[in-house]
Amino acid sequence: MIAHSLPDPFFGPAQNLHGASLIVDVAFFREELSAKNVVVDIGAAGDVLRATLQPLAYQNLDALEQFKGKLTTTEYLCRYIFDAIARAASAGALGEEGRRLTKIRVTLQETDVARAAFEGPLPTSAAGERA
Amino acid sequence: MIAHSLPDPFFGPAQNLHGASLIVDVAFFREELSAKNVVVDIGAAGDVLRATLQPLAYQNLDALEQFKGKLTTTEYLCRYIFDAIARAASAGALGEEGRRLTKIRVTLQETDVARAAFEGPLPTSAAGERA
Amino acid sequence: MIAHSLPDPFFGPAQNLHGASLIVDVAFFREELSAKNVVVDIGAAGDVLRATLQPLAYQNLDALEQFKGKLTTTEYLCRYIFDAIARAASAGALGEEGRRLTKIRVTLQETDVARAAFEGPLPTSAAGERA
Amino acid sequence: MIAHSLPDPFFGPAQNLHGASLIVDVAFFREELSAKNVVVDIGAAGDVLRATLQPLAYQNLDALEQFKGKLTTTEYLCRYIFDAIARAASAGALGEEGRRLTKIRVTLQETDVARAAFEGPLPTSAAGERA
Amino acid sequence: MIAHSLPDPFFGPAQNLHGASLIVDVAFFREELSAKNVVVDIGAAGDVLRATLQPLAYQNLDALEQFKGKLTTTEYLCRYIFDAIARAASAGALGEEGRRLTKIRVTLQETDVARAAFEGPLPTSAAGERA
Amino acid sequence: MIAHSLPDPFFGPAQNLHGASLIVDVAFFREELSAKNVVVDIGAAGDVLRATLQPLAYQNLDALEQFKGKLTTTEYLCRYIFDAIARAASAGALGEEGRRLTKIRVTLQETDVARAAFEGPLPTSAAGERA
Repeated sequence: MIAHSLPDPFFGPAQNLHGASLIVDVAFFREELSAKNVVVDIGAAGDVLRATLQPLAYQNLDALEQFKGKLTTTEYLCRYIFDAIARAASAGALGEEGRRLTKIRVTLQETDVARAAFEGPLPTSAAGERA
Repeated sequence: MIAHSLPDPFFGPAQNLHGASLIVDVAFFREELSAKNVVVDIGAAGDVLRATLQPLAYQNLDALEQFKGKLTTTEYLCRYIFDAIARAASAGALGEEGRRLTKIRVTLQETDVARAAFEGPLPTSAAGERA
Repeated sequence: MIAHSLPDPFFGPAQNLHGASLIVDVAFFREELSAKNVVVDIGAAGDVLRATLQPLAYQNLDALEQFKGKLTTTEYLCRYIFDAIARAASAGALGEEGRRLTKIRVTLQETDVARAAFEGPLPTSAAGERA
Repeated sequence: MIAHSLPDPFFGPAQNLHGASLIVDVAFFREELSAKNVVVDIGAAGDVLRATLQPLAYQNLDALEQFKGKLTTTEYLCRYIFDAIARAASAGALGEEGRRLTKIRVTLQETDVARAAFEGPLPTSAAGERA
Repeated sequence: MIAHSLPDPFFGPAQNLHGASLIVDVAFFREELSAKNVVVDIGAAGDVLRATLQPLAYQNLDALEQFKGKLTTTEYLCRYIFDAIARAASAGALGEEGRRLTKIRVTLQETDVARAAFEGPLPTSAAGERA
Repeated sequence: MIAHSLPDPFFGPAQNLHGASLIVDVAFFREELSAKNVVVDIGAAGDVLRATLQPLAYQNLDALEQFKGKLTTTEYLCRYIFDAIARAASAGALGEEGRRLTKIRVTLQETDVARAAFEGPLPTSAAGERA
């Protein structure tokens, strides 16, 4: 549940300081299941996601250092969260089970009818989606 | 999609300026269907709801005159929207079909797992709900 | 998945022959659970619901005898289905477990943002709802 | 995510040891909002709910002492959880804000198309629902 | 909310004139976000979608010129809407932000358990999905 | 609604005998629609899915011959169901319309916030997903 503004005329009324509940889903992909018959250690994945989101929860993104001068659209935030999880995966935070991931997709639902997603390979590349 | 803060220690991290996507559902109740076999003129109901919500959309509630000194919890906003619709119904904005309504329930969903509701008779009385 | 028209100027474009997917939920209420710790025999309830809906599925309601001269609004159809289930309950089709029901609520979802409900005691009385 | 069996011929194939993901929603009701404009302290409510559910998570209910000789239907479990939360409320675990609650409703969703609920006043009385 | 029939024995009871609520989702894809950090101008996308759907809303598809002799399955309608949006994108109706789209996916949900999708590159090619 | 255990320390509390409601979605893909403007005969697809799932419904997977010595994770079950449907498609059970399928995706939702999927070409190859 974050506040932010999108200070560019392109965004019309969303130039105002407003806010959003962003419901985050992360999908992990791999070619073959691990020896434990899983894609990822879902406990480790939850820990990484919580550690990524905790500094953003109940914040005004306009006031956070890492977003200075950025347009913090839902699309941008998908990429931001993707990058954080991709770094954690590289650093081993997803454990042995996380070493063979080939792709991650981060989806942020902002209302019941709008969501954005970012999907890319590990190690990273790119593709954005808006529904 | 609003920003606000809840400036009381009771609210912990939600004392910060943050935000929410609030998905609004309104349920209209009556004892018997109208001659047109409806509860309410759904077109008129939509117009009233849009007129009620438009001044709040993409706003920072902390900066709006009507919320000065108020704790704009989701529960409070349910009541605020209920009162606006109840006034509109009394003023005839729901048309002939809206004259026989006995009850309205306003539900605000703030995340996929939290919502609040306010339900009361027409003319007004009260009951709050939090799930 | 039914076709119908609502031939009254009140309904604007819905005067046209159009259609709807109506997703039907039925809730059964009682004061105390049965000896089997259930509200109703869910198998019997499913049979009654299927028997009620089967004559309507993939039909043009305008062409069915029972709806001649009726405005088959979603609200009306809630009541129609309620009455059929209430009659079945009275006739014993919900079994021993169904004898102590005090109330039934029928909800029809017509789109992702619109639904209607009818709720009444057993034996019957009335209350309509539109969200 | 629990395992259990319903050892009575009434339950047909559910007499087998099988299982369910039970998604629990709790709604709290009161007549007027608290001084903080809330129905309940949502943090305290979450703590009470987690404490209630933790002993059941990933368990075989057939093997738990408190369910010996019980038919652990979804309806029964609604009541079981209701009673635990009602006791916690009486014991003050919902804090000052929880003292004025008039009603609680516990809903368990067992599949995408079936759920049960128990709703009762505080201090306790009763009403079951099955959809 | 449309009426139609599927006049081929393959479709069994759906050969009757019946209807559906079709909930339309459109996803837009691109490789890199625009200078505004978006995939598409969501206002323009909404305008294009409304302009595409408006001639179909509350209609009997069997009576519309463009569908004469067509089997208007949900799959077919996905493709029909995809083509309309793809044409609008080519004509510039999605604005500068819409020039770099690489793919569009149109999903139609016809009931709570059935949906179809069509996904293709821009400029157009093809892939159907049914769930 | 199945019971099972995951007897490996990797799974923590899920080593216990527990259970799950697994909601199964199957998506069928092809390059071009059939002559009937469909991706697959949805009636035949439903029959194949029911025949695949029926032996698992209301069972303890630990007691079934085909799962002896297997870790029956949600991911594994996606693949198991995929394989059964792929075999049925090869054997002609999806009819003429099913001959041109290029891909199938099986998704199992185990709670409101967790699901797994397996997607592969026909004839078979592989890719797992966990969200």
